[in-house]
Amino acid sequence: MQFASDNWSGAAPEIVEAIAHQAAGHADAYGVSALDRAVEDRFNALFEREVAVFFVGTGTSSNALALAAVNKPGGAVFCHRESHIVVDECGAVEFQTGGARLMQLDGPLGKIDPGEFKDAVSRFAPNFVHAGQPMALSLTQASEVGTIYTRQEVEALTAIAHERGLPVHMDGARFANALVNLGENPADITWRQGVDILSFGGTKNGCVSAEALVFFDPKMAAELPYLRKRAGHLFSKTRFIAAQFQAYLADDLWLRLAAHSNAMAERLRAGIESSDKARLAWPSETNESFALLGREQAAFLRKAGAVFLEWPRPHGLKIEEGDDEILVRLITNFQTSEDEVDRFVELLGARL
Amino acid sequence: MQFASDNWSGAAPEIVEAIAHQAAGHADAYGVSALDRAVEDRFNALFEREVAVFFVGTGTSSNALALAAVNKPGGAVFCHRESHIVVDECGAVEFQTGGARLMQLDGPLGKIDPGEFKDAVSRFAPNFVHAGQPMALSLTQASEVGTIYTRQEVEALTAIAHERGLPVHMDGARFANALVNLGENPADITWRQGVDILSFGGTKNGCVSAEALVFFDPKMAAELPYLRKRAGHLFSKTRFIAAQFQAYLADDLWLRLAAHSNAMAERLRAGIESSDKARLAWPSETNESFALLGREQAAFLRKAGAVFLEWPRPHGLKIEEGDDEILVRLITNFQTSEDEVDRFVELLGARL
Amino acid sequence: MQFASDNWSGAAPEIVEAIAHQAAGHADAYGVSALDRAVEDRFNALFEREVAVFFVGTGTSSNALALAAVNKPGGAVFCHRESHIVVDECGAVEFQTGGARLMQLDGPLGKIDPGEFKDAVSRFAPNFVHAGQPMALSLTQASEVGTIYTRQEVEALTAIAHERGLPVHMDGARFANALVNLGENPADITWRQGVDILSFGGTKNGCVSAEALVFFDPKMAAELPYLRKRAGHLFSKTRFIAAQFQAYLADDLWLRLAAHSNAMAERLRAGIESSDKARLAWPSETNESFALLGREQAAFLRKAGAVFLEWPRPHGLKIEEGDDEILVRLITNFQTSEDEVDRFVELLGARL
Amino acid sequence: MQFASDNWSGAAPEIVEAIAHQAAGHADAYGVSALDRAVEDRFNALFEREVAVFFVGTGTSSNALALAAVNKPGGAVFCHRESHIVVDECGAVEFQTGGARLMQLDGPLGKIDPGEFKDAVSRFAPNFVHAGQPMALSLTQASEVGTIYTRQEVEALTAIAHERGLPVHMDGARFANALVNLGENPADITWRQGVDILSFGGTKNGCVSAEALVFFDPKMAAELPYLRKRAGHLFSKTRFIAAQFQAYLADDLWLRLAAHSNAMAERLRAGIESSDKARLAWPSETNESFALLGREQAAFLRKAGAVFLEWPRPHGLKIEEGDDEILVRLITNFQTSEDEVDRFVELLGARL
Repeated sequence: MQFASDNWSGAAPEIVEAIAHQAAGHADAYGVSALDRAVEDRFNALFEREVAVFFVGTGTSSNALALAAVNKPGGAVFCHRESHIVVDECGAVEFQTGGARLMQLDGPLGKIDPGEFKDAVSRFAPNFVHAGQPMALSLTQASEVGTIYTRQEVEALTAIAHERGLPVHMDGARFANALVNLGENPADITWRQGVDILSFGGTKNGCVSAEALVFFDPKMAAELPYLRKRAGHLFSKTRFIAAQFQAYLADDLWLRLAAHSNAMAERLRAGIESSDKARLAWPSETNESFALLGREQAAFLRKAGAVFLEWPRPHGLKIEEGDDEILVRLITNFQTSEDEVDRFVELLGARL
Repeated sequence: MQFASDNWSGAAPEIVEAIAHQAAGHADAYGVSALDRAVEDRFNALFEREVAVFFVGTGTSSNALALAAVNKPGGAVFCHRESHIVVDECGAVEFQTGGARLMQLDGPLGKIDPGEFKDAVSRFAPNFVHAGQPMALSLTQASEVGTIYTRQEVEALTAIAHERGLPVHMDGARFANALVNLGENPADITWRQGVDILSFGGTKNGCVSAEALVFFDPKMAAELPYLRKRAGHLFSKTRFIAAQFQAYLADDLWLRLAAHSNAMAERLRAGIESSDKARLAWPSETNESFALLGREQAAFLRKAGAVFLEWPRPHGLKIEEGDDEILVRLITNFQTSEDEVDRFVELLGARL
Repeated sequence: MQFASDNWSGAAPEIVEAIAHQAAGHADAYGVSALDRAVEDRFNALFEREVAVFFVGTGTSSNALALAAVNKPGGAVFCHRESHIVVDECGAVEFQTGGARLMQLDGPLGKIDPGEFKDAVSRFAPNFVHAGQPMALSLTQASEVGTIYTRQEVEALTAIAHERGLPVHMDGARFANALVNLGENPADITWRQGVDILSFGGTKNGCVSAEALVFFDPKMAAELPYLRKRAGHLFSKTRFIAAQFQAYLADDLWLRLAAHSNAMAERLRAGIESSDKARLAWPSETNESFALLGREQAAFLRKAGAVFLEWPRPHGLKIEEGDDEILVRLITNFQTSEDEVDRFVELLGARL
Repeated sequence: MQFASDNWSGAAPEIVEAIAHQAAGHADAYGVSALDRAVEDRFNALFEREVAVFFVGTGTSSNALALAAVNKPGGAVFCHRESHIVVDECGAVEFQTGGARLMQLDGPLGKIDPGEFKDAVSRFAPNFVHAGQPMALSLTQASEVGTIYTRQEVEALTAIAHERGLPVHMDGARFANALVNLGENPADITWRQGVDILSFGGTKNGCVSAEALVFFDPKMAAELPYLRKRAGHLFSKTRFIAAQFQAYLADDLWLRLAAHSNAMAERLRAGIESSDKARLAWPSETNESFALLGREQAAFLRKAGAVFLEWPRPHGLKIEEGDDEILVRLITNFQTSEDEVDRFVELLGARL
């Protein structure tokens, strides 16, 4: 009953096989092998346009390099208060940009409120050096609290950004989970809705370590090769990342893995809803679920083998916690089995 | 006939198997799994003392984080003019340190001359803010031109460094190749000779992507967890790096792989020496060989399937190139076969 | 009727004379002249202990270097949402620290609420690299909205900081204005209350350009000489700054200038309170006053020669603005005359 | 007999008067006062074109911000090994650029050799990320060893730079000294010869603290307002710097001061040449002279009241030092009197 994080998972067999397949041979290092090129082409097809793709090893580096590519002195990045770049990256964006500031916006259910964004960006008067200057909007899709921006919600935010000349970055560490839930195609919820840069994650969804930084306008990535190398994120044997993506995108593996994770989460949420020992903290839509349950109940579940994390209450989410109730995060992943979920739910019905 | 670079190689079967073995299960993310801990212990045993180990994905990040850990404002790092941090890392050290300067020293055969180092460090008067301040010595073992510092040579340099209070970093991207050639044990050519930090490379010697940053004095690494995370170099599924090192260090795999690479290089060098169509540019001792040969000869070899790179003439190496002669670098790796070497040597004897 | 900012003022005659006095001679450059040393000693006397003093030219550099001196990777600085380092320095702290984050705290009347601070710092679990690490508390004395921390209020905040091992910085761009209002001595409202570093401002209070960065524990400033030089803030002819401070501190000039500014502000506030055309937005105590008045009234005053700025409504201050009412900031300075104030107040009583 | 440095001098009376003149009034802060604008216009006239001018307080900040304005990740700045940015700025350029590298070139008499530059820049293959990328050429006029680039020499270097698309920065801390010696006009030895950015110094030549960063193509300075503010180099009372420049440029004050310094240096050099107790180390042309003399002779001069610094032997200058001979630097400045020079020369003729 592993619900700690999708980062605690292993790797899909197809991914491992792809790595093994590369092991025997030789190929050009540093991102210029035939395989690298082929997988880059695959991204063009996936997004129905020519994009610039850069393979890196971590989501944090992907996000930080994305924003470094559009950096400005005294720059301000608008993002949700609960976004990964704010909460979980130890100042990586600030570091890669030499000190850009993350403007933390509120909004219900982990999603930026367009009014909040508009207000915040309006406070920056043009050419007023003291305040610094707006430089980008960064969205998280799916959000850190398991919710998803609809196509319309993305468009509402990017429109405000573009009005001010700001490029839009999307942190897609769980992009696949959002995509399968929305039932859209990748182009329609990214560049066609005004997204300029996408951190396209693979690691949380079955890869060993594979993140792709995708620029929908290749010109915006002109300095990225140097930014990536300077940051130590150009792998010599990049083809082992390319190979993971080749397998990941082949035969809709990525969509199948994400769909499975999501389905397991829905099964879990249904179970929780039917229980009187726990309740959902808020409605979520991806492989992340958040529940309130008694502290003793949590201890009981853990003793029985369930692994999950107590979670700090996110900003902007009104939760009425009962006495002695705690908030926990439950994440399913591509490896989660129905049996694991069912055992967990069953335990929720058990007498302590 | 793949002699382009050890970075063009694939991965050893044991390494791939170790990755596959981790794929099925779950484990704590971000470097705290049982496997991570076990492999960290393995490093303690390897170096016969308690060390602090940090797994990262690239040699460049390893070097840059090592020096960031001992950073000072206006800091100066003393290193060889031909070192990887100078020539091949796009300013990664300078970036991670917020602007430290690499003081490029000369020395024969790619190794820092102690007198040069002493002179250079002496030019920094204590408390003279204008010049900045010495902050570290960085050695490369084996060097970028295929040579190796003896134990005594290491000691001579670290003694000067420590006299000035400077920590010593060793870039060991090819540490294994040096080690097997010297026939020493790891502790004796590192901390027992005054080395404080080691970039212990695995990628060039059979891993997919595995580099370990080793601090012989764990206190020196106090800020490293934050430096690594901030730089985007903390992998979520670190155990896949740990697993590579577990296999790498088990049953002397790493030594066997390096010994094979070195042996293939020696076979290659012997072949070149016996040929009248090429000659060694300087004596090298590891899996890197440098040869002078005619431009037409090079073209002929390439047409026959040999892959190698023309190489810029390193500083501090007196080479008398003949008319129309070029310098080439030939690198063997753990996958190189005797047959590959022999075919290459045979071609050198062939009539064009 | 100049109420735009104390930064718009000129310089006190004593300051100019001190500059002129230095013009004829020669002296050691870069902060080591006899005068520099003498003025440094003067600071020891002023603060009743040995301090380390560094002269710089701008308040922004003083604040940024103060925090750079206690920098940590992934560092978080706790400060008020309305502090100068947040609102008015174009990311200078973030830049000098290579990306530290400003944690913006709320609190009534421009002063940090201790509970808010305690909560915010508690959210950083020890050794949890993802979130980064607390590195300093920064207070503004007097605050940006014209209020002053009492000795007890300072102590309450520094106690929390020190419990977590955090050094405390005080931005004292208007330190003199606070001091004369509190009627305390400099030591009693700084290091005796737990302040570790003080940006001691002179520019806003009669100097041409003179800021002193004071470390109450000189050991904390060990790297400051290099940080200052590297940042381009070591003046060659530092003695012209030292001379300004010599005159500034002689015969209580600084206290007299600040007392005058404050008195003029009180006179102004009394006038506003007695008017029915304007009202104070909140109670302030220094040379900064904030008033609400009708837009037409403001235009009328400006036409009559008054210079002042419309001001964005600060966070954490509940102001009930009437229809068509605007918030304005009125700053007096050492040059403000009673006549200027009286004319302004008189105009407030005039029929439009 | 003050020959330590032009930085040890005071300030010209006209400069002090200009400061005093500003002291009484009020004006817009942060560089937008009428005076700031007027002096900016003066620079347009001086350089016979529209330029973008930024006032700062130190030469180091001027140089570092100039190069930050044209920064690139992994950037390499080509400059002379003896340039101020290399030798005397504690890594300020590296810091402001987030880690650009200074490529130290040789060349006789402190001036970059065009062949050396061409070679060095050629080593950077286009799009070869490992090495980083060329980003600027930086010249020093007059050089740190008292020599001057002729118009032709400037042009030869800028032509190579522009061929590679590199902007050219000129460190003009002693620009006035070079200018009066060359007998050219400012435009003819800067942008008409391909210089893009000029650090125009005033401090060493009679100002208290006044440096102007001049961009001949204002578009190149688009981010400079933010870079300057972020670095803490935007003074609130900028008009006190503007006022210094107003006086400095009025009635050719700057040229007269520089001409005087130069003339005193020539008088000094003539005296040294006629002495048999000292000799010029190399021919210099500005207010900097370098002499070789016996250690005892130096002690004798110092005892008699002469102030000067022993100087490390610059690279690229062949000097045959006699036994017990030392190299000293002798700098005259706008305050140096004929009498001072003559006394010094007389002492050189005296019996010890």
